[in-house]
Amino acid sequence: MSQNLKVAVIMGSDSDLKVVSKAIDKLKSFGVTVEAHIMSAHRTPERAMEFASNAEKNGFGVIIAAAGKAAHLAGVLAAHTVLPVIGIPIKSSTLDGLDSLLSTVQMPSGVPVATVAIDGAENAAILAVQILALNNPDLKQKLLEMKQQMRDSVIEKDLELSKNI
Amino acid sequence: MSQNLKVAVIMGSDSDLKVVSKAIDKLKSFGVTVEAHIMSAHRTPERAMEFASNAEKNGFGVIIAAAGKAAHLAGVLAAHTVLPVIGIPIKSSTLDGLDSLLSTVQMPSGVPVATVAIDGAENAAILAVQILALNNPDLKQKLLEMKQQMRDSVIEKDLELSKNI
Amino acid sequence: MSQNLKVAVIMGSDSDLKVVSKAIDKLKSFGVTVEAHIMSAHRTPERAMEFASNAEKNGFGVIIAAAGKAAHLAGVLAAHTVLPVIGIPIKSSTLDGLDSLLSTVQMPSGVPVATVAIDGAENAAILAVQILALNNPDLKQKLLEMKQQMRDSVIEKDLELSKNI
Amino acid sequence: MSQNLKVAVIMGSDSDLKVVSKAIDKLKSFGVTVEAHIMSAHRTPERAMEFASNAEKNGFGVIIAAAGKAAHLAGVLAAHTVLPVIGIPIKSSTLDGLDSLLSTVQMPSGVPVATVAIDGAENAAILAVQILALNNPDLKQKLLEMKQQMRDSVIEKDLELSKNI
Amino acid sequence: MSQNLKVAVIMGSDSDLKVVSKAIDKLKSFGVTVEAHIMSAHRTPERAMEFASNAEKNGFGVIIAAAGKAAHLAGVLAAHTVLPVIGIPIKSSTLDGLDSLLSTVQMPSGVPVATVAIDGAENAAILAVQILALNNPDLKQKLLEMKQQMRDSVIEKDLELSKNI
Amino acid sequence: MSQNLKVAVIMGSDSDLKVVSKAIDKLKSFGVTVEAHIMSAHRTPERAMEFASNAEKNGFGVIIAAAGKAAHLAGVLAAHTVLPVIGIPIKSSTLDGLDSLLSTVQMPSGVPVATVAIDGAENAAILAVQILALNNPDLKQKLLEMKQQMRDSVIEKDLELSKNI
Amino acid sequence: MSQNLKVAVIMGSDSDLKVVSKAIDKLKSFGVTVEAHIMSAHRTPERAMEFASNAEKNGFGVIIAAAGKAAHLAGVLAAHTVLPVIGIPIKSSTLDGLDSLLSTVQMPSGVPVATVAIDGAENAAILAVQILALNNPDLKQKLLEMKQQMRDSVIEKDLELSKNI
Amino acid sequence: MSQNLKVAVIMGSDSDLKVVSKAIDKLKSFGVTVEAHIMSAHRTPERAMEFASNAEKNGFGVIIAAAGKAAHLAGVLAAHTVLPVIGIPIKSSTLDGLDSLLSTVQMPSGVPVATVAIDGAENAAILAVQILALNNPDLKQKLLEMKQQMRDSVIEKDLELSKNI
Repeated sequence: MSQNLKVAVIMGSDSDLKVVSKAIDKLKSFGVTVEAHIMSAHRTPERAMEFASNAEKNGFGVIIAAAGKAAHLAGVLAAHTVLPVIGIPIKSSTLDGLDSLLSTVQMPSGVPVATVAIDGAENAAILAVQILALNNPDLKQKLLEMKQQMRDSVIEKDLELSKNI
Repeated sequence: MSQNLKVAVIMGSDSDLKVVSKAIDKLKSFGVTVEAHIMSAHRTPERAMEFASNAEKNGFGVIIAAAGKAAHLAGVLAAHTVLPVIGIPIKSSTLDGLDSLLSTVQMPSGVPVATVAIDGAENAAILAVQILALNNPDLKQKLLEMKQQMRDSVIEKDLELSKNI
Repeated sequence: MSQNLKVAVIMGSDSDLKVVSKAIDKLKSFGVTVEAHIMSAHRTPERAMEFASNAEKNGFGVIIAAAGKAAHLAGVLAAHTVLPVIGIPIKSSTLDGLDSLLSTVQMPSGVPVATVAIDGAENAAILAVQILALNNPDLKQKLLEMKQQMRDSVIEKDLELSKNI
Repeated sequence: MSQNLKVAVIMGSDSDLKVVSKAIDKLKSFGVTVEAHIMSAHRTPERAMEFASNAEKNGFGVIIAAAGKAAHLAGVLAAHTVLPVIGIPIKSSTLDGLDSLLSTVQMPSGVPVATVAIDGAENAAILAVQILALNNPDLKQKLLEMKQQMRDSVIEKDLELSKNI
Repeated sequence: MSQNLKVAVIMGSDSDLKVVSKAIDKLKSFGVTVEAHIMSAHRTPERAMEFASNAEKNGFGVIIAAAGKAAHLAGVLAAHTVLPVIGIPIKSSTLDGLDSLLSTVQMPSGVPVATVAIDGAENAAILAVQILALNNPDLKQKLLEMKQQMRDSVIEKDLELSKNI
Repeated sequence: MSQNLKVAVIMGSDSDLKVVSKAIDKLKSFGVTVEAHIMSAHRTPERAMEFASNAEKNGFGVIIAAAGKAAHLAGVLAAHTVLPVIGIPIKSSTLDGLDSLLSTVQMPSGVPVATVAIDGAENAAILAVQILALNNPDLKQKLLEMKQQMRDSVIEKDLELSKNI
Repeated sequence: MSQNLKVAVIMGSDSDLKVVSKAIDKLKSFGVTVEAHIMSAHRTPERAMEFASNAEKNGFGVIIAAAGKAAHLAGVLAAHTVLPVIGIPIKSSTLDGLDSLLSTVQMPSGVPVATVAIDGAENAAILAVQILALNNPDLKQKLLEMKQQMRDSVIEKDLELSKNI
Repeated sequence: MSQNLKVAVIMGSDSDLKVVSKAIDKLKSFGVTVEAHIMSAHRTPERAMEFASNAEKNGFGVIIAAAGKAAHLAGVLAAHTVLPVIGIPIKSSTLDGLDSLLSTVQMPSGVPVATVAIDGAENAAILAVQILALNNPDLKQKLLEMKQQMRDSVIEKDLELSKNI
């Protein structure tokens, strides 16, 4: 039943797309159905709230939220759903992403946000797939293959290095 | 007309009351009508949103919001009102209040939060009074008196010091 | 009576103008009368003090102060007035604005500075308008329109994104 | 099928138990089967690796890992499994948990760790339940009830506050 | 002529006295005439300005200023004098003194503050004596003796350690 | 016997090579036999573990490990060997290397990593040589010569400066 | 020949002994000859310099240096020797050890300090033993035993946990 | 007698000259005799020590020391003299100067370093002049003129701004 759950990728501003598109691409590469939106915790709070409130019944399994600075988006979405919410802290023009990271990860008891690295869009996608894969053997298989490919890629680079050093 | 505007003091958790009560007491000492609430951006988001949306028509002039850790409360309230929102970052058990400060102050363009010092409840109250005083000569007079008293108190302590050193 | 209050925009150095001009432009877009000055807490302290001391009787309702590094300007102005003072921490060549932020926001009890985000000039202007709007229905109306436009702009971008993803 | 997946709670040291026990208790309160272990990325790396490698076939759905200082545990476990791994950064005697947080969350592309707040054991448990609930209607129901209870508890405290202020 | 210059020790609040008294005691131990005051850059700005403006003609050679949080005191005094101003950043209840340090040391070009360690009152005194000693052979002799005593004290402790280990 | 011990230089990613190559070059300039590898604590954990486990019997005396972000590599290698492991924290795109530094240096009791400066590849090499030199008079001689050359180079630059200023 | 090399443990102040004694005890538990001293880079610089300059010919193989705040001791010793120098950053009353860590680890090219965790005295000792063990099979054996004991101790605690949870 | 005291400007590396030359130029603009040197606390420690030990009898009144990263230079010089030592923390390629600042300013009791802002070379020069001016009416006069010029320059820029806004 949960095998066809979609993943929502919400970003706080269109300026986040450059980073966030890596999450979208990664999810698509796994064959996951993605729906991407620009929604702001501060500029379109009702739409954000409404989206999160209805996410489950609209067929989503995981919500990924990316925002910078005082990054409230992931937390605000998490307030309105019991779906797992993954937060991507986006580095902005000051403080090197530390503000985004702390605003995303330091959630109070009761409303977790699964936070990945600053600008860690790809990992947000993989984490979403890992979650969906718990009930989707096909995704699990693809994860194992990806892990194997990463391994092979590092080994290949290691071999190349050996030749040149 | 704005002379009787109320001030709302919203805190994210009852554990914030120890700090926040200083704001409430200060406001009362100025004769300002205060309404205090515990509302959470994450646990009671609808109530927070509803409160902010109706704050103006319910007679409030300023909203003070205090929260710790990933302190989204002030920003979430500010998203639903054009009243000035003052944020008090509350120091919690880790990171010495830096997370609360950055989560409160680093708001994106369009939705400001007037942030005071970490645990700066008293200053939040004074700032609210300064705002209301723009159209309330009585409050302005009290602010001037407070400023004079602060000055006198420092001078008195300085004199005492001179005697003892 | 307070409907025609002016806003002062004070910057510590002409190098801050690039950031601060966004505040000036924003205020003007609201039809607020702005007076901009370069005044330094350290190089022209008497002028800064004199300006703040006379700001109220000279028709100002809010003072915005922008400074970098050991950013004392907002605090020094606040020491000489009971008008609300808004501080913009300016990012300088080292420490990514953290020094400016802490020097601006961590004010001692009795003398608040309403601090916005690092380089948050636009929000400083909006906050000033929110304050003046408490007694100016015209400004309040414009704030509501701005909020609506922000919302529409995000929604529009969201629609565009849907077409491209 | 995934309805009976277990959750593993691994801590790097027995000194972490004081914090981590909150995760264990929370999971149990949801009726989730928990297996708790002390395993160190540095002192018992083989056991950690072996546990992670076999976690899936041993019936686990999620791994929660808690560690302090150079907190490698969650990342090391994640290296050996495609199950979702949740990291709890534990505050230790220096740096207020910042080292643990960065060591846990800043994972390289390909191997995510779903990081919660410093010492955020309860949220780690709730996140694990949210993940399992995707395919477990009973857990989802309990999450909704917990959310409702949190809401009610805040509202109740708000009412109490109103009486006392 | 400069042999009898006094040292002013100014603190922003009487709560700083616990730390600052070490500077006063140290200066007295060198036979330097000290005048201590509580003056605030924000609560008694005119007095602070007046003191600094007249410090030279009132016989002071060095001003030591101690303040916490947004520590503007040293910078504000330095704005009104060409005497060397030494700043002691005082650790307050949050941020471990980092705010005080940055607010004191990061002065803009043209108005230096000679900053010592957080809570480094003793070193502020020694630095003041080093400055006065440039034209006071008696003080220079005492500094050399102090340096010798420090050396002897470390050596003595080293010997004691050798016996016990 | 230990005079011919090799040094392993392991990096977490080929993107680290730009920094790490300075360590390799420096080691070669001392005539030390170097073996360089790309191995990841997270993508090729088994190979990393196997390498460390066999390093001693394969003739290595010191392992240098370079990694960025949540830099687990040095710690993971140290977990599997009693050889001294030197860690180079690599600065990545966010947080200026602070995450790498803390992830490398803050190791728990029992498993040290000898950490050098962020991007301090050259010093990692010198430290490795210092360690090997304890039983290799030839290396010790070369270290003394390098120290002398550094000294001479600074003196020469000082002389040049004197001419130009 | 290097089998009887001694380890010097130098601390900047007797107040560091509480932390540093763990290094001394650990070294003794390995049967390593330790010589402990209190020497300050700033108060007894000649003695520190002299000690480092003669350390090698006096039979030392490794120098461990512990200091707090602006922790120059390890670097100053390293300037006068080609022996490996291990630095222990000591947490002092402010900044939680961050100042000590950065002052110890961020050494310029040419003069490395092998830095361990803040207050990581035990690891400094183990690292010293790892270095000496390169040419001392007896020490190597003891290190392997210690590693085994750590493993066993964690496993034992894990078993105990299983009984209680 | 002290009217002809020279100022020494010592930098740890020739790469610091770009920043430090501003101090040299400023000192020369006051007619102060400057002697500039490249000396390293770690690469030429004996020369640094010797310079500081003889600085007073060689006619110096103040030593300015500039260094980056683990910036020990100012502290090491201060260890060998009772002259006032001014430290300039130099921003290097990582950590934005925070390491240099903390390594320079956090000196232990007994050996102060008068620290200015990160890269604050000009202020280091002005501080040195302020110190020398205590016994040099000519320098004092020039400082007053510089202060007046700064004031005039800010006022002029303020006037220009008024025309353009």
